[in-house]
Amino acid sequence: MAKEDRGDGGYGGQREPLRADARDNRWRILAAAEEIFGRGDEAASTEEVARRAGVGIATVFRNFPTKADLLTAILVGRLERLRQEAEMLAETGDPRRAFHDFFARVVADSASKMAIAQALVGAGGDLSGNAKKASDALKGAIAVLLERAQRAGAVRADARFVDVYALLIGVSRAAAHGRLDMEAQSRILEIVFAGLAPR
Amino acid sequence: MAKEDRGDGGYGGQREPLRADARDNRWRILAAAEEIFGRGDEAASTEEVARRAGVGIATVFRNFPTKADLLTAILVGRLERLRQEAEMLAETGDPRRAFHDFFARVVADSASKMAIAQALVGAGGDLSGNAKKASDALKGAIAVLLERAQRAGAVRADARFVDVYALLIGVSRAAAHGRLDMEAQSRILEIVFAGLAPR
Repeated sequence: MAKEDRGDGGYGGQREPLRADARDNRWRILAAAEEIFGRGDEAASTEEVARRAGVGIATVFRNFPTKADLLTAILVGRLERLRQEAEMLAETGDPRRAFHDFFARVVADSASKMAIAQALVGAGGDLSGNAKKASDALKGAIAVLLERAQRAGAVRADARFVDVYALLIGVSRAAAHGRLDMEAQSRILEIVFAGLAPR
Repeated sequence: MAKEDRGDGGYGGQREPLRADARDNRWRILAAAEEIFGRGDEAASTEEVARRAGVGIATVFRNFPTKADLLTAILVGRLERLRQEAEMLAETGDPRRAFHDFFARVVADSASKMAIAQALVGAGGDLSGNAKKASDALKGAIAVLLERAQRAGAVRADARFVDVYALLIGVSRAAAHGRLDMEAQSRILEIVFAGLAPR
């Protein structure tokens, strides 16, 4: 407020640097929070996020009034990034490869995504509002990848989306739960893809 | 206590009915608790278990001093039952069928098993001691079923136990999480078994 009160002689543009700072802070907070809460460490705190982002705790709370707000923002951002990737893959490249790569991508991403979702629930937030919307949009993008792979004869035609999605969730949870390394993940995915291959 | 105080004139055998009663109580409590906590209802309580079992709450606590003791007993019992089934299947029947049936059995069982494990953790218990031992024994029995199916050429020889076990956990978690009905479970298992079939 102090800065806005000084009067800028009509140079509206002079407020621009301040807004850019504020925007930078927001992204720095989100980046720090995504890393810290994605580790699944139960001691992860908003204070640690502020320190890592190099801002005061008040700045964190100005941007995200509650921890649940912060965690929802991370989770939604993560889901939207995945959806964008899925949409990009659906427009380019080999349908079989696009489907396999994205399935593997979601599994590799799952441990930290689940840690964030768990922290969100632990902070009294819920997975219904924007997170649900983002998750549904991602689901839609995955359905497109599957359909495209099926049309190209790369995935058996009788596989239903709900079943493939349940398998994706299952392998993701197994990977997160068992802290499976990339090698184990790809061996397991190879089995699943063999099961999804046309006979 | 009243019954034991009456003095039985040396007929030690007369205490037998009392011991049988006590044993019955224990099983009635376990059966009630397994059903009630297996539902995954967060409001499930030891009081409800006592009511359902038709015993006083004091009898429950005499048998299981803490809720965690009770939940551990249910979980261990459940895991041991599964292990026994796996061992029986390993001695009889077609190796391919035995492996598939048991995999499906574990998945179908998973929702209530996970609810019990979750309640145990929520009650301050842990999954390390006897539950871990029972879980490891079950794992060993599943490894035997897999090896037998592989020797019979019913499952691809290059599938490692750790990967198959991770898939079992994954499909189980997907089934529990998505409350998948038996039909969806068997469609998904069909995909996994196709992936595990020799090529």
